[in-house]
Formats: sequence, C-alpha cells, structure tokens
Amino acid sequence: MSADNQQERLGNYIAGYTDGEGSFHIAIQKSPKLKFGYQLLPEFHISQSTDRILVIKLIKDLWKCGYIKANFKGHDNNMVLVVRNRQDLLNIVIPFFRKYPILSEKQKDFEKFSFIVEEMQKGHHLGKRYFIKMVKLAFSMNGSGKYRKFNVTDIINSLESSETTR
Amino acid sequence: MSADNQQERLGNYIAGYTDGEGSFHIAIQKSPKLKFGYQLLPEFHISQSTDRILVIKLIKDLWKCGYIKANFKGHDNNMVLVVRNRQDLLNIVIPFFRKYPILSEKQKDFEKFSFIVEEMQKGHHLGKRYFIKMVKLAFSMNGSGKYRKFNVTDIINSLESSETTR
Repeated sequence: MSADNQQERLGNYIAGYTDGEGSFHIAIQKSPKLKFGYQLLPEFHISQSTDRILVIKLIKDLWKCGYIKANFKGHDNNMVLVVRNRQDLLNIVIPFFRKYPILSEKQKDFEKFSFIVEEMQKGHHLGKRYFIKMVKLAFSMNGSGKYRKFNVTDIINSLESSETTR
Repeated sequence: MSADNQQERLGNYIAGYTDGEGSFHIAIQKSPKLKFGYQLLPEFHISQSTDRILVIKLIKDLWKCGYIKANFKGHDNNMVLVVRNRQDLLNIVIPFFRKYPILSEKQKDFEKFSFIVEEMQKGHHLGKRYFIKMVKLAFSMNGSGKYRKFNVTDIINSLESSETTR
C-alpha cells in the first residue's frame, strides 16, 4: 500500500471513529470578568476505553496537538483526547474533517463548530449581536443543549439586559 | 472519486466506526434441551443514536443482511444493527473485517469471534472438549466476561460434571 493510500485509509478510519466517539463542542462558561459575563470555549474531544486507546494515540501522533486525559464516567474508564487550542483547531482539526468528512448528522455539528471557531478568529464574538448568535448556535449543537448546565434563554436574557450594548 | 476509491473510503470509515461502536460477541444461553445445556450464539452488533442513524443504515445497505432494532439504555435512545445469521457472519461480516481491519485491541475480539464462528461451521462445537474451549474463549472477549450474566467457572464445572462425555 502506498503512503498516500495508507494516509487516506487512516483518515477515513479516524472520521468513522469520530462519528461514533468524537464531539465538536462549544463549552459555555460563566466568566464575570469578561465583557458579556460568559465565554465560548470550542473543544474537540474523542474518547476510547482505557484498555484499548490505540486510536486516540494514532490521532494524537498524526495531529501532533491536544492532550490525553482520563475521564471516569460511571463504570467506564475512558481516555479522552482533547484539543482546545484555537490555532490547532483552525489549522489541524478543522482542515482534517474537511478532507475526511463525517457522514452522519454529526457533520452539522462540525459545520457549526468550524463557523464559530472561524468567527472567533475574526473577533466577531466581541460584538454583542454576534456573540448572542454564536451562543444560540452553540446551543443547537450536540442534542440541542440537553447536556448543558445552563439554559439558553437565561443566558440570552442576561446578555440582552446587560449594560454592554454592542 | 472512482467507485473503487469510494468503496475503500466507506470500508475504512465503517471499520473506524465499528472500532468505537461495534461489538463482536458470543452470547451464551442456557438451553436445557441441547446436548451440553448451553448454546453459543455469535452476534455482531453496532449502535448509533436514534437522531443520526445514517452509518448503521449505510452498513445494512452495503451488507444486505441483519436487522435494525431499537435499544433503550438509560437516557440514550439507540438503534442497533444486529447480524446473527451464521452464513451472513461467515460470508459477509467476517470477510469485510478481514479486508478492513480494526486497528485497536478490539481486533483480538474479532479474531476470536471469527475462529469460533468458523469452528461452529465445521461442527466442532458438538464435541465437549471443543465446546469448553470455545466457552473459555468467548469469556475472554469484550472485557473478559464482565458484562455477562453467567460465571465461566460455573459453566465449565457444569459442563465437566455433565453425563455427556464427548
């Protein structure tokens, strides 16, 4: 198998693995010191059970970014590869999934994720109207916010009533 | 992209997806009417959340075997593609994963699974010594039997003390 074919094979394998075990997520954190009181934290993560972590190691070796941490959830011991650095997301993760797309509905989360990361890079999240738009978009991802600690309406209300007007 | 390339791409994608969400499993059922009182039931299954079942549909369309059923586990609504028919396992599922191998440790489960299915096809599970060997092998799969209702020692004891000697 040529090096190119091997790279294609691994790329598609990782895309398939990500379809099941990966997540394009925009965390929303309270940050009282920031302009709007909240912060958007884009994060890609992907997990594998501790007894067979080869795939996430392969991904880390290929991408050369992110970090692996333990994630104990119920009875399952998982290891998770996390990429949070915005430049790594922009230059490595997003181009990778443009080349090897996700086939299921999770692709929509990827598209929203890339949009938000790219808008943040342009500084658009610093304008209130845009920030609210991004919060709404973030909430529409990964099962429409069902796993979130915050409620989108509360955040939007708090943002709209805040003194910052732009 | 040529049809061959597209097939390769899908094959590797499915293998990657299976690495996360698929399972090569040998169910063990009490069957008092059978020779040894237990039955080995090889089964491949693979799940996806109900709101994005495209990948398991793609697999079903490609393989043209198995059936899709709902699987409610805790808060998650999953759909599962199940293949239990031995001829389908022998002629479709096993050759597929020989062509597109699993990269993680799950590959070892696949190898044990193929071995058992192929031995059963040859009728080797009808001999007591072989049957016990297969039960032990089945128990060494998927986290060494931690999800099973039965204990391997109980089954082996019951088999060894049974009247059937061969």
